[in-house]
Amino acid sequence: MSFSFGSKIRITIFGQSHSDGIGVVIDGLPSGEEIDLQRVQAFMKRRAPGRNPYSTPRKEEDRPRILSGLFQGKTCGAPLCAVIENLNTRSKDYEALKDIPRPGHADYTAYVKYNGCWDYRGGGHFSGRLTAPLCFAGGVAKQLLERKGISIGARILSVYDRKDAPLDESLLSKELLDSFEQQDFPVLSQQAGEAMKQAISEALHSEDSLGGVVECYALGLPPGIGEPFFDGLESRLSAAVFAIPAVKGVEFGAGFGAAFMKGSENNDGYVQKEAQKEKQGKTILRTLTNHHGGSLGGISSGMPLILRAAFKPTPSIGAPQRSVRLSDASPALLRVEGRHDPCIVPRAVPCVEAAVAVSLLDLWYLAR
Amino acid sequence: MSFSFGSKIRITIFGQSHSDGIGVVIDGLPSGEEIDLQRVQAFMKRRAPGRNPYSTPRKEEDRPRILSGLFQGKTCGAPLCAVIENLNTRSKDYEALKDIPRPGHADYTAYVKYNGCWDYRGGGHFSGRLTAPLCFAGGVAKQLLERKGISIGARILSVYDRKDAPLDESLLSKELLDSFEQQDFPVLSQQAGEAMKQAISEALHSEDSLGGVVECYALGLPPGIGEPFFDGLESRLSAAVFAIPAVKGVEFGAGFGAAFMKGSENNDGYVQKEAQKEKQGKTILRTLTNHHGGSLGGISSGMPLILRAAFKPTPSIGAPQRSVRLSDASPALLRVEGRHDPCIVPRAVPCVEAAVAVSLLDLWYLAR
Amino acid sequence: MSFSFGSKIRITIFGQSHSDGIGVVIDGLPSGEEIDLQRVQAFMKRRAPGRNPYSTPRKEEDRPRILSGLFQGKTCGAPLCAVIENLNTRSKDYEALKDIPRPGHADYTAYVKYNGCWDYRGGGHFSGRLTAPLCFAGGVAKQLLERKGISIGARILSVYDRKDAPLDESLLSKELLDSFEQQDFPVLSQQAGEAMKQAISEALHSEDSLGGVVECYALGLPPGIGEPFFDGLESRLSAAVFAIPAVKGVEFGAGFGAAFMKGSENNDGYVQKEAQKEKQGKTILRTLTNHHGGSLGGISSGMPLILRAAFKPTPSIGAPQRSVRLSDASPALLRVEGRHDPCIVPRAVPCVEAAVAVSLLDLWYLAR
Amino acid sequence: MSFSFGSKIRITIFGQSHSDGIGVVIDGLPSGEEIDLQRVQAFMKRRAPGRNPYSTPRKEEDRPRILSGLFQGKTCGAPLCAVIENLNTRSKDYEALKDIPRPGHADYTAYVKYNGCWDYRGGGHFSGRLTAPLCFAGGVAKQLLERKGISIGARILSVYDRKDAPLDESLLSKELLDSFEQQDFPVLSQQAGEAMKQAISEALHSEDSLGGVVECYALGLPPGIGEPFFDGLESRLSAAVFAIPAVKGVEFGAGFGAAFMKGSENNDGYVQKEAQKEKQGKTILRTLTNHHGGSLGGISSGMPLILRAAFKPTPSIGAPQRSVRLSDASPALLRVEGRHDPCIVPRAVPCVEAAVAVSLLDLWYLAR
Repeated sequence: MSFSFGSKIRITIFGQSHSDGIGVVIDGLPSGEEIDLQRVQAFMKRRAPGRNPYSTPRKEEDRPRILSGLFQGKTCGAPLCAVIENLNTRSKDYEALKDIPRPGHADYTAYVKYNGCWDYRGGGHFSGRLTAPLCFAGGVAKQLLERKGISIGARILSVYDRKDAPLDESLLSKELLDSFEQQDFPVLSQQAGEAMKQAISEALHSEDSLGGVVECYALGLPPGIGEPFFDGLESRLSAAVFAIPAVKGVEFGAGFGAAFMKGSENNDGYVQKEAQKEKQGKTILRTLTNHHGGSLGGISSGMPLILRAAFKPTPSIGAPQRSVRLSDASPALLRVEGRHDPCIVPRAVPCVEAAVAVSLLDLWYLAR
Repeated sequence: MSFSFGSKIRITIFGQSHSDGIGVVIDGLPSGEEIDLQRVQAFMKRRAPGRNPYSTPRKEEDRPRILSGLFQGKTCGAPLCAVIENLNTRSKDYEALKDIPRPGHADYTAYVKYNGCWDYRGGGHFSGRLTAPLCFAGGVAKQLLERKGISIGARILSVYDRKDAPLDESLLSKELLDSFEQQDFPVLSQQAGEAMKQAISEALHSEDSLGGVVECYALGLPPGIGEPFFDGLESRLSAAVFAIPAVKGVEFGAGFGAAFMKGSENNDGYVQKEAQKEKQGKTILRTLTNHHGGSLGGISSGMPLILRAAFKPTPSIGAPQRSVRLSDASPALLRVEGRHDPCIVPRAVPCVEAAVAVSLLDLWYLAR
Repeated sequence: MSFSFGSKIRITIFGQSHSDGIGVVIDGLPSGEEIDLQRVQAFMKRRAPGRNPYSTPRKEEDRPRILSGLFQGKTCGAPLCAVIENLNTRSKDYEALKDIPRPGHADYTAYVKYNGCWDYRGGGHFSGRLTAPLCFAGGVAKQLLERKGISIGARILSVYDRKDAPLDESLLSKELLDSFEQQDFPVLSQQAGEAMKQAISEALHSEDSLGGVVECYALGLPPGIGEPFFDGLESRLSAAVFAIPAVKGVEFGAGFGAAFMKGSENNDGYVQKEAQKEKQGKTILRTLTNHHGGSLGGISSGMPLILRAAFKPTPSIGAPQRSVRLSDASPALLRVEGRHDPCIVPRAVPCVEAAVAVSLLDLWYLAR
Repeated sequence: MSFSFGSKIRITIFGQSHSDGIGVVIDGLPSGEEIDLQRVQAFMKRRAPGRNPYSTPRKEEDRPRILSGLFQGKTCGAPLCAVIENLNTRSKDYEALKDIPRPGHADYTAYVKYNGCWDYRGGGHFSGRLTAPLCFAGGVAKQLLERKGISIGARILSVYDRKDAPLDESLLSKELLDSFEQQDFPVLSQQAGEAMKQAISEALHSEDSLGGVVECYALGLPPGIGEPFFDGLESRLSAAVFAIPAVKGVEFGAGFGAAFMKGSENNDGYVQKEAQKEKQGKTILRTLTNHHGGSLGGISSGMPLILRAAFKPTPSIGAPQRSVRLSDASPALLRVEGRHDPCIVPRAVPCVEAAVAVSLLDLWYLAR
């Protein structure tokens, strides 16, 4: 059991790739919050497939239907449930693979865990399709966070060996995040973006796939958010981001780079943020650099929160791979056919934003 | 609130660096389990300071007293509570720093979060000292896991720019993990280890500090452990490991490296593990390589679990750093004096093991 | 937030009386369990209105649609989501009452809690209609419990001042529980049942309503279920039963009667249950009497679990009642019109069974 | 596992009757709250034994030692841990009973649950002694609630067949609750109290025991507290109160009495509470009567919260009782010797207050 996440704002995701529907229940939203469903849907569209040559041509409707939780356009104290029908499923594609676990997928681990009783069609409940309800929840969370002055955005930092231009942190702004949101393929350097797309095209033609890194930002996060010891920012955010299929690494600020630094390089000195104290009488500081990535002791510092998530290459590739027939333990050579993304990273961008938004909203309310 | 972790085996940590005591309550342990307290204490000793020139000369007793949960040497269904007295505290060292937050520490974020009401002595409840009760729980968890055939060990992968030799995964064995456990400074290559120690000595003399990476392994983990969507192996383990102070990145298997791979490189093909099926009639496989690091879809695959945690350099350094007086917002130059580890990584090794052990034990019981 | 219940088997309920739909997500079910949906629906029908003259003539379809969690008729490791459309709603009936809180309902407390932003139509998420998804979950839980040899049933113990015949506990059997399940109006003494129905008819004609008591039994519960200190049987079961609207009291075994006893009367002496020891080598006992109602120290004793729930009279009555207009604080006389049960108790019987079944299934898995 | 309770303010209790110590960790307290430890201890003294002829002459020190969570007398964001040493234990008294489960105690159910591995001395972790740390937490919670204008008190409603005078609810006031707190044997009518004491004395001399009912009140609770569907006031409070050993029934307001009423009798009409609206623009009401006991739809109404808990007679009695030797399943006649309360009810009064206070504080913070 574990399709739920969060303490104060709790989301519960359900569905399989080929079940009648998938969806999410969001419990704990304050009442009286207007939810702009069109913006939520626009956000979800960013992860929908079939939008460009770099993603699977499979079309998903991803049109959420609200069963509960809204009244006259506003949250009403009841859990918000959104359901998405599964319309465009081709179960036959997968029937042949039932007996032969695909390398890099959860087929084999699910087979063992569920004693053979699981919905293997399209990856069942391990399908990336379950990030659609996650994005619904993320789209809602982003709106509530925005009303508190908190913006979340993300870009593609790298695809395979092609890297985006480095970010001058002093340029981080809501406008920059908005510009990322406008792009189909959000990067700083369009040139770097083209190189990435080129690499994806090549992978597509060679029936291979590529990994990549997503970098996510939260701006406007006030200091004081995060619940150490065990529910600090890094713990909660990493738990949410690692739930996204294919994530193999998560880091904050300087991240793994900090392990190769000296303290005198890595420490971020303090200066006063504002000339006057805040209303509550607290002195508000900012740091001169941001190697800590917005979190100290698991608590937000008021500096931009910076998280990077490493995505492995899509495991579904055309090249023949070694596997084993579960029915009789005989070896098998497997070629995964069907409709697959040669690189999941562009569609993963809103998923990372969603995981971050959902976690931050929960922590925001926990910190009150 | 969040000093608790786990669903079925739940640990609750308490204490501050300079409070009367620190400790842990472990709830949910099955009854009838013998606990070898001497082994637990030997495990805890590995994180204790003052053992060698590379750590702070401050002595901590770290002698846990069992208040409840054991009867005639065995668990008895009641929560196991262990308390460690705080004896060797020098509160005066920190009094001067009360007003000036140390860069890289949680002083400033705690000041904001707790409205100025927090125990700033020695970092309060953000102190690395709270990893002592974590290690107590880890020492207990390791014993229970061992009875299930699961071994956990770790080594220092790098300190600053000095790296240990690469590990040939085919050599991973309980014996290797045991040999790591025997070493004060656990590495594969003693030569690499000496180079790391050399770097630490140099940092010590220049009143600076160094970061590093710990690599942790779990062997013998049966396939099927982990509770997706949100409580998969990576989510739970990363949440626990990020709770350790100074961790800035966590990755599994190929980790961030997978983001720079093609699917044809990264996918781990399957072969049968054993000639015969298991008792339950399941076909048991193993993978030819282990880029997935033992987890697929958040569920253990039966391959070695491999996790890396990046530690930032100890923020307490002698060099003058820029800070601000909280009382009047005036700038201040700060030199952190007192007893500090120039590199926390050697003492962090058992902490990572503990975080992993506690999480795995919980997930093991959840998977039943 | 709190539309979720359970630790290992966790249900999340959503919906309002007049939202598009209501439903439930059940997370944590073991895979491979066949679910007989027709039996689940038959169970749900017992709480559906419109079946006899004693309940509201309002028809509810209560036909659950399974969105996820079943594959080829069996649980598959994914959360089981069932949705019920809200078809037969007359929102106009309630529009007039928006401003005037109905005594005995949650109108006023919801108005305060949600700052006026709640779905007041038909009681919103406080409606007894939300017990439909609870009963879906209960119907599923009952099937799983039955496979473990545990049967749950209930009867109407009293309506207003009319009481059913006392139960000779030695006659408690699965057959008796089945016979209760067959009855529209489950009682031991048909004569007593007729007297209760007569009282309900009279209340209906005088536009009044009646309270009553439901007595629920669990047979076949093995000893050892229940997680003290805080999640003992009584704590978990009472929490679930008190979630049913209109419950004002819960007791176990002798219950409040035990408060008027001496120890020498109330204590239940032990005798051996079976001539031979069980396989695990434990001596299995039974008690000579069952004042403890199947629970000692929050743990099942192996004796029948007996729980009674007191239901207050339906607050919707025709008689004029004093209330206040929320808009201008002026006094108002209120007559609740529309379709209401003069006595909720007959329809509450399966709800109590459902709350008990869901809790016991969760505790059963926790005790493993 | 389940020695923890609460969502936002979470208490974790540990210890056995004869372990080295017992205690409690309170996580989630806001920082900056002064805790008057002398008042906490005065509150705990009310449950301590040995204070009068009606309780066991066994002395317990019950002097809590604060290990963490307080700094300069105030909460500091870290969990508050209090430990009580177990000094006055006579383990020999119980050794003889190891093999023969005492009727009415948890000896047998613990034996089954823990496979014989449990601390049977003095009831182990089922001992009423574990209500001492509960009372510590309750004493702390009461202080925080008081600062929010919420007072909690309780009286003995009945002992065996001797009942206290009925309470005119219009007389409910903080002063009345304070007067209950001052009394060793808190009742409205001293005459009724004497009759109860007389009954207890008689039970003591005949080596028997008596049950009774405690009635608990919370005044000043603002409307809007409680988290339906599953964490409504009744669900949370009953779960906490049923955790107290020997409680067999819990009811609110009219409670079981409501089941014997008509709607026209039971409904509580509304009138305006104050001439002017509150600041937030809400119209605040009160009810003319209080059959609902302060909770509607699981949410506080602003009226006094009234809860009654039924306690069974102390199971330890001198009269011979039938039991069975667990070692060889042979029948045994048991006389429980040692130091026992002939009636637990007077000492249970602060325990009920503590359970209510802890739950209300948690719900108060959840409702923000």
